[in-house]
Amino acid sequence: MSTFSYPVRSEVQSFDPYTPGLCIEEIQERFNLSVVVKMASNENPLGVSPQVQRVIANHADRVFRYAQSDMPNLMKALSEFHGIAPGHFVAGNGSDELIDLLIRVCPSPGVHNVVTSKPAFSMYGLQCRLCGVEHREVPLKEDFSFDWQRLRAAVDAHTAMLFLTTPDNPSGYCPPASDVADFVRSLPSTCLVVVDEAYTHFVDDEAMQSLLARREEFPNVVFLRTFSKCFGLAGLRLGYGVMPVELANILKSVRSPFSVNLLAEEAGIAALADVTFHKATLDVVRSGRAFLFSGMQQMGCRVYPSQANFLMFSLPKSCSLSARRVFELLLEKGVIIRPLSSYTLPDHLRVSVGTMAENTLFLTMLQGVLA
Amino acid sequence: MSTFSYPVRSEVQSFDPYTPGLCIEEIQERFNLSVVVKMASNENPLGVSPQVQRVIANHADRVFRYAQSDMPNLMKALSEFHGIAPGHFVAGNGSDELIDLLIRVCPSPGVHNVVTSKPAFSMYGLQCRLCGVEHREVPLKEDFSFDWQRLRAAVDAHTAMLFLTTPDNPSGYCPPASDVADFVRSLPSTCLVVVDEAYTHFVDDEAMQSLLARREEFPNVVFLRTFSKCFGLAGLRLGYGVMPVELANILKSVRSPFSVNLLAEEAGIAALADVTFHKATLDVVRSGRAFLFSGMQQMGCRVYPSQANFLMFSLPKSCSLSARRVFELLLEKGVIIRPLSSYTLPDHLRVSVGTMAENTLFLTMLQGVLA
Repeated sequence: MSTFSYPVRSEVQSFDPYTPGLCIEEIQERFNLSVVVKMASNENPLGVSPQVQRVIANHADRVFRYAQSDMPNLMKALSEFHGIAPGHFVAGNGSDELIDLLIRVCPSPGVHNVVTSKPAFSMYGLQCRLCGVEHREVPLKEDFSFDWQRLRAAVDAHTAMLFLTTPDNPSGYCPPASDVADFVRSLPSTCLVVVDEAYTHFVDDEAMQSLLARREEFPNVVFLRTFSKCFGLAGLRLGYGVMPVELANILKSVRSPFSVNLLAEEAGIAALADVTFHKATLDVVRSGRAFLFSGMQQMGCRVYPSQANFLMFSLPKSCSLSARRVFELLLEKGVIIRPLSSYTLPDHLRVSVGTMAENTLFLTMLQGVLA
Repeated sequence: MSTFSYPVRSEVQSFDPYTPGLCIEEIQERFNLSVVVKMASNENPLGVSPQVQRVIANHADRVFRYAQSDMPNLMKALSEFHGIAPGHFVAGNGSDELIDLLIRVCPSPGVHNVVTSKPAFSMYGLQCRLCGVEHREVPLKEDFSFDWQRLRAAVDAHTAMLFLTTPDNPSGYCPPASDVADFVRSLPSTCLVVVDEAYTHFVDDEAMQSLLARREEFPNVVFLRTFSKCFGLAGLRLGYGVMPVELANILKSVRSPFSVNLLAEEAGIAALADVTFHKATLDVVRSGRAFLFSGMQQMGCRVYPSQANFLMFSLPKSCSLSARRVFELLLEKGVIIRPLSSYTLPDHLRVSVGTMAENTLFLTMLQGVLA
């Protein structure tokens, strides 16, 4: 029963909010620690590009102005970065805004449904629920790969949209682009496929693991990218979609006009231009990923092969501690990783790739906890 | 008929997007001008507080981190600024996000309706349309004051929400708080009243013109405030609502977790603390408002009394030019003001209060155009 005298939609009462990673400051205070490392939110281990930092400082005196709501400079920079005409891009306040906009624009509540894997990034399901749109979840296979047959079977004539995260979160699994292509071709043209490529920069071979370069073959596919991960702008909020021009125009017309802040736009342009920082990020993530993978495997953990900037793992069979307890013990030692109970995976943990020093510290602390 | 193979909701096809003010850079390029002044978007004439600029530069190296999604430091600063417990505040990516969230949370599409004046800030109607919620518009009186009787008559048992902007945009009209109080008391308790106080800082006497200090008497009222105007952070996007704790909790649970960017939070805290800049802003706006009012009146314009940081006016009866033409002629001279056709007021114009130099330049240019 509502406790409000005014209406509050039943769908939003007792809503389970998104569960974010913990913050360094919280843990420093809680356990009275001077050094805390955060390997919980897939942030950039190298921080913020020095060129981006300069651009932010240089534009600090301009934030009293509204930005240009169509962001022509950012659109031009994205167009040059990808070699795709500017009209295909839509920027948002993080790719979260684009996920929300797509669910607001395409499916009609009570008519259409949206299909995702289970578990998947929780924002897909949360925004469906907020919009009152049916959300169909298809379990991943036991090895955390996509179950193409069951996904296909879940799609019907009322499926407006299907989300695929490649590489996937929280497992790091990335299917070959050819498998995604076959799957997309098997779907009715009435189903829009949203390929969330938040972590695609980190894959070993983008040509083999992303369809973005072949997007013209797939008129019903939207690609989502973010500046939060390899571009180091998580806190500034900037994501974008690459999609058919007609759909881009609809999204731009309904998007709140100033949802992307002025410093995000300037920082995004500078981040795209800083090729050196971009390359250094990929190097540290790829080498750190291999280092963490073998380090945890040597301790007897089951580590899942990852093409992203994080690794999912479960504890050695011999370990008597729960995953939750290991997470808490690491927290007390000043290492924040991510429990996966909010992904309905209470026996799994996720660690983001850090700097070599952070990776080494994490492995040492984990070894101590498991000993 | 849809041009899409996948579903696109009929409500969002041929959506009229929000019409923003023009940008300085656009006009410099278009007319090859070196100096352009913008008095179109009600931005702060003094720019950004120097203390805020320092805080932004100092935090530039932290934007690779996600912010704390519950923003405890900002909540504490707002609580101290207003003397209201932190649980009553909800921050958003501009107050635009709060307008959208309220319309997503309270009215059920197909069941409830939302009442506003006409014309009103266009975001209210745009977000209703996006949500598929009925929007009832009640014409303002001829003097641009609120028509309390007709507003009351438009509210029925299915009215979830009513928006009031005080001071109003685009007229600058501000009703006495006692009139608002009487009106709110006349409404059924099933109607939530959203008082958008984006411009309240600029009124002559806040105690007489805002109910915020008396909010405990009005459990069905939400107050919206923004950092875009007198705090000079339009481009960083930060707004907030003050509301009953139960409603605040619902909004926080459905809000996208990182919608407020990290620099907006830090800048907002610094802006609240910079009392000197705040006072200087109020001084320059109040004196500039009086200066512009009498200057335009002397030219024979009809100028509407304003309690905001802008003035609405219509041209002298003797003037043979249309308002649109006057807007364009000023543009060619490098002065950007706001035509009001998007507010369905094609014969009116709106000018934001600038610095004394900008105000003088505008009056000189207007005089030239009208001569």
